[in-house]
Amino acid sequence: MTDRQQTGYHMSPEDFRRHGHALVDWIAAYWQRVESLPVRSRAAPGEVAAALPGSAPERGEPFAAMLEDVERVILPGLTHWQSPNFFAYFPANTSAPSVLGELLAAGLGVQGMLWATSPACTELETRVLDWLAELLGLPAAFRSDGGGGGVIQDSASGAALCALLAARERASDGAANERGCDRRLTAYASTETHSSIEKAVKIAGLGREQLRIIPVDDHFAMDAGALARQMAADVAAGFTPAFVCATVGTTSSTAVDPVAAIAAVARRFGAWLHVDAAMAGSAMICPEFRALQAGVEQADSYCFDPHKWLFTNFDCSCLFVRERGALIRALSVLPEYLRNRASESGAVIDYRDWHVPLGRRFRALKLWFVLRHYGAEGLRHHLREHVRLARWFADQVAVHPDFELAAPVPFNLVCFRHRGGDAGSEALLERLNGSGRLYLTHTRLDGRFTLRLCVGQTHTEASHVEAAWAAIRAAAEGTAAPAG
Amino acid sequence: MTDRQQTGYHMSPEDFRRHGHALVDWIAAYWQRVESLPVRSRAAPGEVAAALPGSAPERGEPFAAMLEDVERVILPGLTHWQSPNFFAYFPANTSAPSVLGELLAAGLGVQGMLWATSPACTELETRVLDWLAELLGLPAAFRSDGGGGGVIQDSASGAALCALLAARERASDGAANERGCDRRLTAYASTETHSSIEKAVKIAGLGREQLRIIPVDDHFAMDAGALARQMAADVAAGFTPAFVCATVGTTSSTAVDPVAAIAAVARRFGAWLHVDAAMAGSAMICPEFRALQAGVEQADSYCFDPHKWLFTNFDCSCLFVRERGALIRALSVLPEYLRNRASESGAVIDYRDWHVPLGRRFRALKLWFVLRHYGAEGLRHHLREHVRLARWFADQVAVHPDFELAAPVPFNLVCFRHRGGDAGSEALLERLNGSGRLYLTHTRLDGRFTLRLCVGQTHTEASHVEAAWAAIRAAAEGTAAPAG
Repeated sequence: MTDRQQTGYHMSPEDFRRHGHALVDWIAAYWQRVESLPVRSRAAPGEVAAALPGSAPERGEPFAAMLEDVERVILPGLTHWQSPNFFAYFPANTSAPSVLGELLAAGLGVQGMLWATSPACTELETRVLDWLAELLGLPAAFRSDGGGGGVIQDSASGAALCALLAARERASDGAANERGCDRRLTAYASTETHSSIEKAVKIAGLGREQLRIIPVDDHFAMDAGALARQMAADVAAGFTPAFVCATVGTTSSTAVDPVAAIAAVARRFGAWLHVDAAMAGSAMICPEFRALQAGVEQADSYCFDPHKWLFTNFDCSCLFVRERGALIRALSVLPEYLRNRASESGAVIDYRDWHVPLGRRFRALKLWFVLRHYGAEGLRHHLREHVRLARWFADQVAVHPDFELAAPVPFNLVCFRHRGGDAGSEALLERLNGSGRLYLTHTRLDGRFTLRLCVGQTHTEASHVEAAWAAIRAAAEGTAAPAG
Repeated sequence: MTDRQQTGYHMSPEDFRRHGHALVDWIAAYWQRVESLPVRSRAAPGEVAAALPGSAPERGEPFAAMLEDVERVILPGLTHWQSPNFFAYFPANTSAPSVLGELLAAGLGVQGMLWATSPACTELETRVLDWLAELLGLPAAFRSDGGGGGVIQDSASGAALCALLAARERASDGAANERGCDRRLTAYASTETHSSIEKAVKIAGLGREQLRIIPVDDHFAMDAGALARQMAADVAAGFTPAFVCATVGTTSSTAVDPVAAIAAVARRFGAWLHVDAAMAGSAMICPEFRALQAGVEQADSYCFDPHKWLFTNFDCSCLFVRERGALIRALSVLPEYLRNRASESGAVIDYRDWHVPLGRRFRALKLWFVLRHYGAEGLRHHLREHVRLARWFADQVAVHPDFELAAPVPFNLVCFRHRGGDAGSEALLERLNGSGRLYLTHTRLDGRFTLRLCVGQTHTEASHVEAAWAAIRAAAEGTAAPAG
């Protein structure tokens, strides 16, 4: 006790090594057994909390006790996103090199709010995002040597908010920041656009009433003609179109908005065009998908999430902008305690001015490790495999008499229904997820309950998709009212 | 090659174990040698970027190559926040148990946007934040069983934005979200309030002109009388006071606003009171500091950052609210693809409605590990040590003929000046930081250039503070014009 007070309560380097090795081994073993665990947690509300003490411990505890509780209390309360049988939502896939990068970032513990607070934290990020812009075939303007540049954000929601703020300031000549947002700025999204756009419109003070919801076509893609008519009507009514979000790969069905047509409309009315490719952007490392985002060269900003489908653990969302000055003007505030010579020289990037938070950790490391471990070749291989497996699944659905496809399959998501109708599909979903053998989620398309199967977890292979299809058919035989 | 294509490009479990162990050892060794590295990076702008390839590799590379580049390219570009000689800004301290928690979160790779997407991710967070509310002596209303609750945010900036949005909606009866922010909502901060409040006011569409900057007293604390007069004048002019930020431990000098007096004013005018204790909140685990935030029981929200001074690696900012419904109403948007039975039962928390991002990683794990490893006793010990060392340093400054204290020292930050004046203090700062032996930053107080020395890095001990004081005196002897 006396000794402990003298040396403090810190974990010794020897203990850190020992526990660190044990934890690395535990994680490796977790990944090897995760397939055997029920994918969706079976915990009831309050069950995990009830297994935890009501107060923090007064005295320190050994690390072994924590790892035991991870096994006993935490694991049963997890839905296993890293199970190869996880087909729900969009994935949040990860990989060994990414986890090592996150570990290194935590160990170094640098905070990169300014270039000066760790130049490598900023410069590696800029460079790796330039790499990605090139890998995705984005326009040269989105690179740091082209007047724009990329930044890692916490999420596509945060990225969309920042893009909207830049748009708001551009449309108001900076008046929104200074005098407050006025209610004549309008924003545009489709019925299928991600909810983060509505959230951003509310946060930024435009108001939901100024968010115009544009209809979609039969493939759930925004109707660019309707967009043009809405913008014209708004201008006639005294509004200023400020922002439009085109989506490449919507959340419900990975529908693809016609970016080029939307860009032409946005340009005509002077609105900022943000392209949300949060999920599908990763596919653009494969040139064969790029036609789906033709027109991106006209966008003002572009977002995709390596933490969804590029083997990089959450959080890592990449926002690219055409004109970085527009983003920085919207988000910069400079107090004395952050002034420094490097920033004032103008020769460096201070990423604190590129997003909402001030502080930031060294997230570029994990992206760098992933890109270097896999190489572009390895990443393309695995993304193409996921798409191939999704298409195989879609083919099975398409020819099966009891199922139907609910939307096209441009990437790795299959939307489908049981012909038994909404109730049948919903019961089927619950039966499947309750089995623990796989995990799917749902959406509504054309007002109808629709199952979604997304192939994107790092280790999902043909055997998992085949097993999923077998499980779905078997469950349907027990579930469905006969068709017709 | 053929073999590699068959098995994919993933790192094998064996390689992950091997590289993981090596990286853990590398981090342990880094922490042991970090004291010997120049604290502030000597990299020139562009130097790190120039050492990196212009494009991503086409073929994968071995992990050893990455670790070599970390050593060769990244390390010289780091400012070492984990050096015990880092006295700059506020710390972003970390600890071995925190790094292990971050590693585990990355390895599990769960995404806790909804309770249903991993119940343990939500319930552990709720429980650990309840523990913290108790440890800090916060009012019972801020606990999850008291109508409020806590949530981990990315930063105090994000937390302040969310508090402001809740305030905006409360003041406008929800009209700001629906119809847009109107320009009659006012917010209040002092000349010493963190810049994140101005940033939040701009983001939320209130406009900088509606942010009232209240003067401070001789100790840099907000003048509550001036606040009351300003609010009264605003109401008379047709404005609605919506939000006031009181700070416990300002960024420049850890000044302490009179929370109780401000709370009384806020209550009288119906404004939301947010308490920003980003840095100093950690000290409240020691009861002897709590008198400094008397009145907190009247606050609507409270924020502190374990990633600053509670041995938890960035990012981990804790926001507590008195009435969680106010926060949720401000931030909730519910699309079909996120609907689920647990959420609709109302029995669970969905943290996506408590902040800007939708996705979230399992940050509660690292906080849990830190609290359990140190115990409340260990945390108090180390925080008291930091404060003791800062006071020792302040005592030396106070009695030295060439230096003077620039502000009171309620916590672990010492603001001081060389009597040689602004130019002397600035030259002294540059000489010290250029030496690589320690790192300080500056602010301005009363318009004068002021050095800041903050004792908060995990492993800073008496020897480091003594060496800092010796280095400062030695540098001053070479720098200063004689006083008088």
